[in-house]
Amino acid sequence: MYMSLKRLLIGKPLKTRELGEQRLNKSKALAILSSDALSSVAYGPEQVLIVLATIGFTAFWYSLPIALGILILLIALIFSYRQIIYAYPHGGGAYVVSKTNLGEKFGLIAGGSLLVDYILTVSVSVSAGTDAITSAFPALHQHNVAIACVLVIFITVLNLRGVTESATILSYPVYLFVLGLFIMIGVGLFNIATGHAPAHAHPPVGTYVSGVSLFLLLKAFTSGCSALTGVEAVSNAIPNFQEPAAKNAARTLMMMGLLLAILFSGITFLAYWYGISPRGEETVVSQIASDTFGRGTLYYFIQVTTAMILVLAANTGFSAFPLLAVNLATDKYLPRMFSIRGDRLGYSNGIIILSVLSIILIVAFQGKTENLIPLYAVGVFIPFTLSQTGMILKWIREKPKGWKHRFLINLLGALITLLVVFILFTTKFTQVWPVLIFMPLIVLMFLRIKSHYDAVGDQLRIYESEASQPIKGNIVVVPVAGITKVVENSLAYAESIGDEVIAIYVAFDRESERKMEEKWKKWKPELRLFTFVSQYRSLIRPMGRVIDLIEEKADKHNYQVTVLIPQFITKKSWHYILHNQSGVLLRTYLLYRKNVIVTTVPYLFKK
Amino acid sequence: MYMSLKRLLIGKPLKTRELGEQRLNKSKALAILSSDALSSVAYGPEQVLIVLATIGFTAFWYSLPIALGILILLIALIFSYRQIIYAYPHGGGAYVVSKTNLGEKFGLIAGGSLLVDYILTVSVSVSAGTDAITSAFPALHQHNVAIACVLVIFITVLNLRGVTESATILSYPVYLFVLGLFIMIGVGLFNIATGHAPAHAHPPVGTYVSGVSLFLLLKAFTSGCSALTGVEAVSNAIPNFQEPAAKNAARTLMMMGLLLAILFSGITFLAYWYGISPRGEETVVSQIASDTFGRGTLYYFIQVTTAMILVLAANTGFSAFPLLAVNLATDKYLPRMFSIRGDRLGYSNGIIILSVLSIILIVAFQGKTENLIPLYAVGVFIPFTLSQTGMILKWIREKPKGWKHRFLINLLGALITLLVVFILFTTKFTQVWPVLIFMPLIVLMFLRIKSHYDAVGDQLRIYESEASQPIKGNIVVVPVAGITKVVENSLAYAESIGDEVIAIYVAFDRESERKMEEKWKKWKPELRLFTFVSQYRSLIRPMGRVIDLIEEKADKHNYQVTVLIPQFITKKSWHYILHNQSGVLLRTYLLYRKNVIVTTVPYLFKK
Repeated sequence: MYMSLKRLLIGKPLKTRELGEQRLNKSKALAILSSDALSSVAYGPEQVLIVLATIGFTAFWYSLPIALGILILLIALIFSYRQIIYAYPHGGGAYVVSKTNLGEKFGLIAGGSLLVDYILTVSVSVSAGTDAITSAFPALHQHNVAIACVLVIFITVLNLRGVTESATILSYPVYLFVLGLFIMIGVGLFNIATGHAPAHAHPPVGTYVSGVSLFLLLKAFTSGCSALTGVEAVSNAIPNFQEPAAKNAARTLMMMGLLLAILFSGITFLAYWYGISPRGEETVVSQIASDTFGRGTLYYFIQVTTAMILVLAANTGFSAFPLLAVNLATDKYLPRMFSIRGDRLGYSNGIIILSVLSIILIVAFQGKTENLIPLYAVGVFIPFTLSQTGMILKWIREKPKGWKHRFLINLLGALITLLVVFILFTTKFTQVWPVLIFMPLIVLMFLRIKSHYDAVGDQLRIYESEASQPIKGNIVVVPVAGITKVVENSLAYAESIGDEVIAIYVAFDRESERKMEEKWKKWKPELRLFTFVSQYRSLIRPMGRVIDLIEEKADKHNYQVTVLIPQFITKKSWHYILHNQSGVLLRTYLLYRKNVIVTTVPYLFKK
Repeated sequence: MYMSLKRLLIGKPLKTRELGEQRLNKSKALAILSSDALSSVAYGPEQVLIVLATIGFTAFWYSLPIALGILILLIALIFSYRQIIYAYPHGGGAYVVSKTNLGEKFGLIAGGSLLVDYILTVSVSVSAGTDAITSAFPALHQHNVAIACVLVIFITVLNLRGVTESATILSYPVYLFVLGLFIMIGVGLFNIATGHAPAHAHPPVGTYVSGVSLFLLLKAFTSGCSALTGVEAVSNAIPNFQEPAAKNAARTLMMMGLLLAILFSGITFLAYWYGISPRGEETVVSQIASDTFGRGTLYYFIQVTTAMILVLAANTGFSAFPLLAVNLATDKYLPRMFSIRGDRLGYSNGIIILSVLSIILIVAFQGKTENLIPLYAVGVFIPFTLSQTGMILKWIREKPKGWKHRFLINLLGALITLLVVFILFTTKFTQVWPVLIFMPLIVLMFLRIKSHYDAVGDQLRIYESEASQPIKGNIVVVPVAGITKVVENSLAYAESIGDEVIAIYVAFDRESERKMEEKWKKWKPELRLFTFVSQYRSLIRPMGRVIDLIEEKADKHNYQVTVLIPQFITKKSWHYILHNQSGVLLRTYLLYRKNVIVTTVPYLFKK
């Protein structure tokens, strides 16, 4: 049942050598890795205007220089990450760069931030997409949380099916979204050039605005920077690219940067030219589309593709999280299970964990995840800053040919991203303080996991010097509950492996102890039966004490003690509750508390 | 942590020989076994008046002959159960009587009805008690369900502490309730005798009432019969009495019958004399108390003790259910776990199951369990009828001295109880139909459990004729994941118990397969290593196939195959998730699917 459902949902397992076929070409990679970054143009320019609107309409011209600043930062980030891709072609992005150049702790901060960030990406973008859908169908509004969860599960299943399959399905909406915005920007610019758009709806550039402050402009700038989240995804996902992976990844990154720059500046410019103010009930993109096309087919096309790409932005998290987790697991900072490929060659454990955690966030915040956005911005700009700084140190240390020009790019990037982090903490401290609590906890968790694995490795290593004592013989202990076929089989097996067999019978009163001893004498007089009465009617602890005694004696002669536990295997699973599972409890107790070898002899019921 | 909480709640474990001290003397037994029956006088007389009120005030005099009918039935039941106690002194009541005299199926119907009935007793009486409490403190009304659940848990803990301890605590409210009602009835009768009560508030006996029908009078009669539920509890609980158990139980039963008769007729008579009509907002007992004492201390005393005894009626279920379950479990109709005494010598599994099921009912019905009352009445009158019929057959078959007089008592009882069942089905079919569905299901469940146990017993029996093949030798299979200390230990153990040791290594690619083979040759060239590549990266199924092959060969030579699985025992429980638990999965798979002996070699990490 479970297996056939699994097959239906995620498809038949793939062989390891089919891995190559699961890799992405550039166009599919662009679609699934850039949906997060591209979707943010749907709200980035609006965020800038919302801050400027606190001063007034005349301040809207500042959106142009601010957009220019964001573009410069974008270019610096793109070129910097391009350099990272070539320098670290096995992926890992900010985590690997920071770890290699700044040390373990900084690497873990970068990695931890990004892991948390991808969880936030999924929750925030799916919630936003759900809002867009339920705004169109208000009857669904009360089911927001359920719809968001179903969407996350849908994306999870797609990703469990494998990277290429999800890329094939998910690339259409992304390209349609880009196409729609391109048409909108093109038509808009054409209208402006041909004079079909009003030329005086906006305040002229350079208008004096009273009350404007550097603090406010910086706040507007950092709000706009939310459009840059998702830029790092490509550098984490290099192993998913077709060969030559690094080159393909770098080209995809450049393409993404170009698209992002065009869309961001186009939307900002049109919003400025049309004199659009941010309104609660209608998004800026919707206003531009409505002004450009009127409320026709193209308008609805843009609205629908926007809703879709908001949901799909979650997919960037699903592509990048598992790969980053692999990097951390390989370095022993995360449980080893994250580095195992599932049936369809994806890292299914990472995918499932991401899905579960983001659903928990959605449910916990009841789908109202907007408050998480600043947290999300901090979580992405911290690794940005760390990776740029790491690259600076790398250039200074290695000084390859032409390093000064690269150094400058990273220096510029590092300064701007650091500034963004700083402004985020000063302007939005009430929303971002949790980072200061959970980041140290996450790093601590990484370090504790690592230290456990190191300790285990040390304990498992074979040192020539400490040769283990040879086993001279075996004592096999068989707890018996009566004289049955199961006991007969177990004793036969015990005699075949052991040099000495001891049967133990626990009675609850003297009477049954005596009876058992009598029966035993008739049945197997040659085998030693040890009986005792448990006054408190418990089986496990008294048994443990007896085995301790046997073990003590055995140890002196280098004998090994094995406890043989018969287990009934019932034909129907509900029959399970009809049998006292003392055997299971005894086994657990002996393994964990007493360090005794436990052998389970199954007895399969035929009816 | 868990253990110390358990000790705090239920006390230290008791030794089996302390069992005698846990038995009940007559006065405690009366308190805990009769609370259900006695509490029903708080609503029984009222039920009769409610039915009569549908005709009118003048019909109220019929409550006297109806009460007389109920008294006759009560006397018949009490004497009948007295005979049952002496005839079946090991308890089991209706279940044992019906099984012995009418056959298995009827016994199971009686037993199943009573089990369900005790669950209903707990739910219904705790809900009723909670209503009484929250009527006094309306602010608590919205927490009804939670309060009811807490009360059930409280009674559960008391019962887990042991029978005598709960009896000690619970007997005060029962005796105070009886005392309160005695004073009320005494003062009421005194007032009437001394002419202090109005003599003409009631319709004279024999007044002609138009519209009265036999159907209606019978309906009033069955409604009043709800006061008789709980009468059978004593006969189930004989093993809980101090010796001589049967005699003490019989005396307790007679005492309970006497109290019940006095209280029931006293309340009915006072209600008639005072001319009290049933009202939604005030109970009949409250009206009588208020008319007798005025709203003083005695009035509130009666109200408080009534609320308490309604809750405590649940305790009758807790005393009788586990003992009935023991009877059914001993006969193999219920899982064996019901017949095991817990730490405090009570049958804790029965107590816990009863508690869980009644909490489920309370939550499912949101504390509104009144609709369950007719179900509850059917559930108790079916076993009444069956046990009386069983006794009739017993007398006819055995014909002991003076059997005719006993036969008559049971014949009368059987006829009246059968009539009550019949009237319940005709007048309240819309509420009692579920019995017709769940009773057959319960009986079917009993029979299936029994047939499983019988099949198991048959399979476990040792027949001299089929001597098992002796084991000629052992092949030990050791799955290895690398060359570590754990593997070294496991191999040493395998060699000490086996005649042949085969190590198996599953690689995920050719490269690692080759490497492992090379390393092995250097490390243990004398030991056979079998390697293969799992193309789908799964461990368990391919391993299963290899073991199948080995098993096939071993079988031919009467060799036994054992699979040795090393298991890491981590120092801290959270470390558990840091290790792939393939060993655990492999073990389960091999035990359940392949019927192979599996040995777990623990490796305890020291850090």
